[in-house]
Amino acid sequence: MSVSVPIEWQRRIERLEALEAIRRVKARYLNACDQQDPDSARDCFASGQIEIDMGHLGVFRDRDAFAELYRTLGCHPHVLDMHHAANSEIDFTDDTHATGLWSLDYRNINTQGKTVTFLSVLYHDEYQRIEGVWKITKSRSEFKTALHCSYADGPLTALLAARSVAG
Amino acid sequence: MSVSVPIEWQRRIERLEALEAIRRVKARYLNACDQQDPDSARDCFASGQIEIDMGHLGVFRDRDAFAELYRTLGCHPHVLDMHHAANSEIDFTDDTHATGLWSLDYRNINTQGKTVTFLSVLYHDEYQRIEGVWKITKSRSEFKTALHCSYADGPLTALLAARSVAG
Amino acid sequence: MSVSVPIEWQRRIERLEALEAIRRVKARYLNACDQQDPDSARDCFASGQIEIDMGHLGVFRDRDAFAELYRTLGCHPHVLDMHHAANSEIDFTDDTHATGLWSLDYRNINTQGKTVTFLSVLYHDEYQRIEGVWKITKSRSEFKTALHCSYADGPLTALLAARSVAG
Repeated sequence: MSVSVPIEWQRRIERLEALEAIRRVKARYLNACDQQDPDSARDCFASGQIEIDMGHLGVFRDRDAFAELYRTLGCHPHVLDMHHAANSEIDFTDDTHATGLWSLDYRNINTQGKTVTFLSVLYHDEYQRIEGVWKITKSRSEFKTALHCSYADGPLTALLAARSVAG
Repeated sequence: MSVSVPIEWQRRIERLEALEAIRRVKARYLNACDQQDPDSARDCFASGQIEIDMGHLGVFRDRDAFAELYRTLGCHPHVLDMHHAANSEIDFTDDTHATGLWSLDYRNINTQGKTVTFLSVLYHDEYQRIEGVWKITKSRSEFKTALHCSYADGPLTALLAARSVAG
Repeated sequence: MSVSVPIEWQRRIERLEALEAIRRVKARYLNACDQQDPDSARDCFASGQIEIDMGHLGVFRDRDAFAELYRTLGCHPHVLDMHHAANSEIDFTDDTHATGLWSLDYRNINTQGKTVTFLSVLYHDEYQRIEGVWKITKSRSEFKTALHCSYADGPLTALLAARSVAG
């Protein structure tokens, strides 16, 4: 005989599925950034009021403004980005809201400026399940470490090695 | 009273388990590469016809051919590899087939040639459940960014910084 | 009608939850290291006898001794760490014991000594569920590759590029 699964166990399965969905939307965002696909990156965020706090790069209150900046600054043949997120710590506030901490390893090669940059960043995120789909509603970048080098003369020469991007 | 779990919920649990199994076989493959364990790396692929497309390094149609090349080129004391995959996006075609996108951070130190190489690569994978075990059946490496340096004279000197390995 | 879930399926769900909990405690440990939060890092380990084998850095038999060393050596404004773990392979010995293999990408910038270090390390871990909470009971660091550079004169100059930290 097949009957309904007790609510407690349903919720445990749904919680596991929610974890997968949240990791997935974050992965999509990061891969979209490396694929220079601003539309796909934008769709990872909720459509209403959100907060993307990128520190010295600005704070964005809606996903279109973010996508526009990203398209202008980031989507060029000479900008070579790698965004790798690890060490995720995701907590559920309730069935449709969660927070997330991630560690980002960011590497940029700028073949025009001839620079290589290694950053580590902590993402402080919030997620919301909207019409059945988990979206990012808040993402604050806490810059942790920065190594910025020039290779204009051949040797990689440190221009900045500091706790934050500001030096 | 304990009765059978409805099929819908069984499938949801099995899907979560499949996600874990797919991530696991990819992890095994990458760790085996860093452990210079070609037998273990080979066993992550299906035994029949597969496709491993490593771009300029060649295309392999069976796992033995791949393992042989890997043993010849990669398994030496002077080859120091790190393969780190992140940002996985796994989709199920059906209960026994899935596709996967991963971002790879690859670092190589060659103590013979005195070079250091940082690559980022997107893996476009396919997986199949064969006799209950998830295996990799297709893996195409899309090279995204490359920084290749020599340290023969001490300073890390950029030999190549480009969107692809070819320059 | 809602009835109890068969034990087999309960265990499968609990196994999936255990995987999440183990990944989570490892993530917390790594992020705590980057946040220079020794109390939080210490709490990721079991309170009784454990084994943290960090090779040339020493072997610790209890979490307080580890936290003390970490506080003394690691928690300074000039020490800029990034710990990124990937490729996890977690196996259950039974319902309350598991082993884990992880690949660590470690980057350190020392703004006092003006050095940059890239390490890759394999973690060989053991975990135990104690009073319902998964903790790390054993962690052995197998150092795989090391690139240690000085930037004291500007150019990143290789001081050590080797299979192990010892050279």
